[in-house]
Amino acid sequence: MTEGGLLIIVAHPDDETLGCGGTLALHSEMGKPVKVLCLTCPDDERRRELKKAVEVLGIKELTVFNEKRLSDENETVNRISDVIVSTRPEIVITHLNFDYHREHRLSSELVKEAVEWAAHTTTYAEPWRVDRLLEMEVNTLIPNAHVLVDITKTFNRKMEAMECYSSQLVKFPDGYYQRFTKLKAELRGVQGGCHYAEAFIEEPLTKNSPFYQSKSTSNLFRGAK
Amino acid sequence: MTEGGLLIIVAHPDDETLGCGGTLALHSEMGKPVKVLCLTCPDDERRRELKKAVEVLGIKELTVFNEKRLSDENETVNRISDVIVSTRPEIVITHLNFDYHREHRLSSELVKEAVEWAAHTTTYAEPWRVDRLLEMEVNTLIPNAHVLVDITKTFNRKMEAMECYSSQLVKFPDGYYQRFTKLKAELRGVQGGCHYAEAFIEEPLTKNSPFYQSKSTSNLFRGAK
Amino acid sequence: MTEGGLLIIVAHPDDETLGCGGTLALHSEMGKPVKVLCLTCPDDERRRELKKAVEVLGIKELTVFNEKRLSDENETVNRISDVIVSTRPEIVITHLNFDYHREHRLSSELVKEAVEWAAHTTTYAEPWRVDRLLEMEVNTLIPNAHVLVDITKTFNRKMEAMECYSSQLVKFPDGYYQRFTKLKAELRGVQGGCHYAEAFIEEPLTKNSPFYQSKSTSNLFRGAK
Amino acid sequence: MTEGGLLIIVAHPDDETLGCGGTLALHSEMGKPVKVLCLTCPDDERRRELKKAVEVLGIKELTVFNEKRLSDENETVNRISDVIVSTRPEIVITHLNFDYHREHRLSSELVKEAVEWAAHTTTYAEPWRVDRLLEMEVNTLIPNAHVLVDITKTFNRKMEAMECYSSQLVKFPDGYYQRFTKLKAELRGVQGGCHYAEAFIEEPLTKNSPFYQSKSTSNLFRGAK
Amino acid sequence: MTEGGLLIIVAHPDDETLGCGGTLALHSEMGKPVKVLCLTCPDDERRRELKKAVEVLGIKELTVFNEKRLSDENETVNRISDVIVSTRPEIVITHLNFDYHREHRLSSELVKEAVEWAAHTTTYAEPWRVDRLLEMEVNTLIPNAHVLVDITKTFNRKMEAMECYSSQLVKFPDGYYQRFTKLKAELRGVQGGCHYAEAFIEEPLTKNSPFYQSKSTSNLFRGAK
Amino acid sequence: MTEGGLLIIVAHPDDETLGCGGTLALHSEMGKPVKVLCLTCPDDERRRELKKAVEVLGIKELTVFNEKRLSDENETVNRISDVIVSTRPEIVITHLNFDYHREHRLSSELVKEAVEWAAHTTTYAEPWRVDRLLEMEVNTLIPNAHVLVDITKTFNRKMEAMECYSSQLVKFPDGYYQRFTKLKAELRGVQGGCHYAEAFIEEPLTKNSPFYQSKSTSNLFRGAK
Repeated sequence: MTEGGLLIIVAHPDDETLGCGGTLALHSEMGKPVKVLCLTCPDDERRRELKKAVEVLGIKELTVFNEKRLSDENETVNRISDVIVSTRPEIVITHLNFDYHREHRLSSELVKEAVEWAAHTTTYAEPWRVDRLLEMEVNTLIPNAHVLVDITKTFNRKMEAMECYSSQLVKFPDGYYQRFTKLKAELRGVQGGCHYAEAFIEEPLTKNSPFYQSKSTSNLFRGAK
Repeated sequence: MTEGGLLIIVAHPDDETLGCGGTLALHSEMGKPVKVLCLTCPDDERRRELKKAVEVLGIKELTVFNEKRLSDENETVNRISDVIVSTRPEIVITHLNFDYHREHRLSSELVKEAVEWAAHTTTYAEPWRVDRLLEMEVNTLIPNAHVLVDITKTFNRKMEAMECYSSQLVKFPDGYYQRFTKLKAELRGVQGGCHYAEAFIEEPLTKNSPFYQSKSTSNLFRGAK
Repeated sequence: MTEGGLLIIVAHPDDETLGCGGTLALHSEMGKPVKVLCLTCPDDERRRELKKAVEVLGIKELTVFNEKRLSDENETVNRISDVIVSTRPEIVITHLNFDYHREHRLSSELVKEAVEWAAHTTTYAEPWRVDRLLEMEVNTLIPNAHVLVDITKTFNRKMEAMECYSSQLVKFPDGYYQRFTKLKAELRGVQGGCHYAEAFIEEPLTKNSPFYQSKSTSNLFRGAK
Repeated sequence: MTEGGLLIIVAHPDDETLGCGGTLALHSEMGKPVKVLCLTCPDDERRRELKKAVEVLGIKELTVFNEKRLSDENETVNRISDVIVSTRPEIVITHLNFDYHREHRLSSELVKEAVEWAAHTTTYAEPWRVDRLLEMEVNTLIPNAHVLVDITKTFNRKMEAMECYSSQLVKFPDGYYQRFTKLKAELRGVQGGCHYAEAFIEEPLTKNSPFYQSKSTSNLFRGAK
Repeated sequence: MTEGGLLIIVAHPDDETLGCGGTLALHSEMGKPVKVLCLTCPDDERRRELKKAVEVLGIKELTVFNEKRLSDENETVNRISDVIVSTRPEIVITHLNFDYHREHRLSSELVKEAVEWAAHTTTYAEPWRVDRLLEMEVNTLIPNAHVLVDITKTFNRKMEAMECYSSQLVKFPDGYYQRFTKLKAELRGVQGGCHYAEAFIEEPLTKNSPFYQSKSTSNLFRGAK
Repeated sequence: MTEGGLLIIVAHPDDETLGCGGTLALHSEMGKPVKVLCLTCPDDERRRELKKAVEVLGIKELTVFNEKRLSDENETVNRISDVIVSTRPEIVITHLNFDYHREHRLSSELVKEAVEWAAHTTTYAEPWRVDRLLEMEVNTLIPNAHVLVDITKTFNRKMEAMECYSSQLVKFPDGYYQRFTKLKAELRGVQGGCHYAEAFIEEPLTKNSPFYQSKSTSNLFRGAK
């Protein structure tokens, strides 16, 4: 896989599209490597839908764990950090730690832990330090967003990717998810001064572990190395 | 004043040096505009000491409020945001919101509020949006730092600036503050893989107000515009 | 004033309309007494706008405090509880305690306090116990709503009331507030299974004070006395 | 089972009686369906005691899980929500989320989760939405109660039900639980203006999931539909 | 005043008796210096009642501030720390930081602050370091007590002291406070294995300030110096 | 084993030395029984290192669990409380509940739980009540310490014990842990007014369970029985 880029880690197939499909497509169009890790997969149908959706979003790198339910085990943290080390993303996006969905909250916690361990020189021969961790909104809304990404250019692809999940959409009458997703993007768009946007929480990464290769900086201005 | 750069906002003369004197001197040497706002000033002696200390740190822009004690008033928020709007800093540094010192905690709260209001188009003809808000450690330690700045190059100037506060240092036997400050910088240096460092908490800024000129982004990667 | 009904307590003119204008109009149409208390008023223009807006919403009882800014004083709590005791509402609605706006958070805190003191037999000859306290969303979104009120019937009146605040709307380009308010109501409508809705947090009232006339119940089922 | 009524979900046999036996008996006497789910059962003796105690309280519907210890598993949430869906209660009562007992805290968390999933149209053909969730006190006291139920009429039956747990009562010298329970009920009675009372925390239910059949209301007044 | 002993700091006359009158009388009987600071005083009648009550409890040192309401000012912190420095208590007791009463919560915050400043060598020529800070319960109950003091020996004097507050007791029908206080003491007694008890929260004191004369220990076992 | 003394419970071999090796050696030299429980052990080499290190610290009682990773199970709580009951310590020290390391946080939670259950008369024929629970710092710093222990006398033995962990030290370049540990002890020493110190959080123990043999006191002064 290509070093750098953006890795989205979600609990279930479709979360990546609902939460930040526009952002994924946008960075993909820019030529940034965009990668997906899905922590559970209920069955083959969902897996096929996921595959199609990420293709629509222009994503080529997809990893799917086979578990049907997400559970709180050390082993899961290890497997996630293995993926982080092998995909080497600058940015990781995952679920809100205050999501109403229990497996979303658990994903958020496990991913944060995996980001820490992926940087340890004692665990990996070639550890990897993620630069930025963001949390996205699916059904639970972020009260005060830190980041609003303008997805006007890729909003249609987000909606198209969503249509791949017919097994899910059919569960809701009256195009629930299509309407919810469109209105949420418009509302965030008004807030962000653009047509459509996606909202994120910034989760600053601590640098406390002694197991990092280096962790000081000598220039606080963004964009500086 | 010059647009951009770094503004440090502290409760008392000497907090700027103890908390992040090395970082201030470092960015000053880089040619970045570095500015100080001190929210209280007990007397003329402290004011003279502050003036000398910021000179040693290479800082030219200093604002001092005349109040002897900091109090929780709307008016104080307004005055701080006025300074932010007129100095137009990219980065603001202030006290920890969990500092043991009540006026430090209050500074932290008032500054956060002022950063928000400084960006409002309805309050200012030329509002200003701070890009980054950091919190520093004086006597209360940060348990898990988000940012460690390598101050090896400017550590001596930090110590020299501290010596300007003779009215304060004399209160403590056995060079308390000199030893405390040196050891803290060395400990943070070991953590950061350098000789001397200063530690900070990153306080992500929310973008919820409708009173911002623009608040969306179209590239999540650091250094991108 | 008529006993019972609903009292909305807001920090500024227009908060009542943006936050829950649809709900106010709805209950007003049902024949419930609906009352407004506005804790500050910047000037006569805003006062005139407020008067017009509440008329559009079908509200007849309006109290406005003359202060320009809201401050954290015992006296303010007393004045709010005086209004609660004289208007005797079953339901009180106010701001979110996690609103991004400092005066909204403070309103939330002061109102909660006033609801407590209004029920004290030692403070009032005829104390009043509010039955239900709700918090509404203006610019800060509620992540997980407890209550969604279907305002499809009164949505147009909400938008009409909003138009009364021309001094405010003019501050924002491109009909910001009109679009934001409409989309928020539509998004909440999708969540609530209706066209337009408003979202609320339920803030359960504690019953700890010894100064209540009575505070036990003998039937837990809603609608029971 | 009969739709509606009250379901109490506890960690161990005797928690239902100690926590809210008076409230259960009271609603049972009113003719409301009252149901018990006990999440663990150490042995046959405890099971027999539980059966006798709920009979004394006038309860006919009892479900007991056979596990000896409560553990934090998705499967347990599923089994609890199955019981909620089959018993269809308006009100659910469980343990405090700040109880000193680890299994009580865990019960509280699992029950809250199960209440959410029981309402999902995607999980159940006939989902069920609980109207009200309350938390009761066993040994950990509620600092500020939201609800005090007058159990003067059924206090004797509560004490009688408690006597069924002879295997437990014998562990404590000097009638510890009898005295503790009586004094707690009297203290809550003084607070509630009656002879004996039981105290509860109201835990408002969020309505964020898209998987609900309907979740908006058009009348905020209690007792309205 | 005599160095050492116990200082109780309360918001209103009668809080000292209701919250921990038994504990005050108990330590007074043991010959420990027991002192009272009351932060507000509504009128002369309450002052006379307070004087009589503390006499009944065997307390000789009483300080009363004349303010009618407690407000959040730096000056109040200073005045409290002045009293701590002049009375030099080993133990300070005050209100719960989660009390339902706003002035009780504020007392708790101001006292904690004053305890810190009283120990500063830079503020006082003869600073004083309190050894232990406890919080007591008046109407809000402590869910999980850290300390239960057996007041069996002095319970009657507590009740007698309470009777001094006839201006307050008369506000409540049916001997509310007498019954509440007696039952609370009995309930805490059952928990503590004695007839009557009073419950407390232990609030560990931080030792972060550089302004302390000394703050290390060389023996962790209680009772060691 | 000897009743009384101090029990340190850590997640991994070397935590006991890094966190509070000086304090352990100090109390050992005083003749207090000092005991170690290590909750995991990766392999025989680490076990040998641990054995050597505790010998250097003058500790004779060591218990090691064989698990490679720490997991959140009821069974682990039981095994820890068994060790507490058999070693009967007055003081227990463990990890910070806000440590950056997940297994440290989990240790902290499990130990707190085990301390509770060890005191239950219903679980043990001879239950044991720990008097004091402290939390120590390894890599995560305590922002505001409650206790600073002067380890000047035993600092060299701490450093010597650390050298036993050659399998760990070798993982870090430039004597990372030696330098970090020395500077941390010096910094805490400056704060504590001595050469070297170790910092702790005091975690007050609640006394809510009915399963204690006795839990009231009749003298609040330290050192009293």
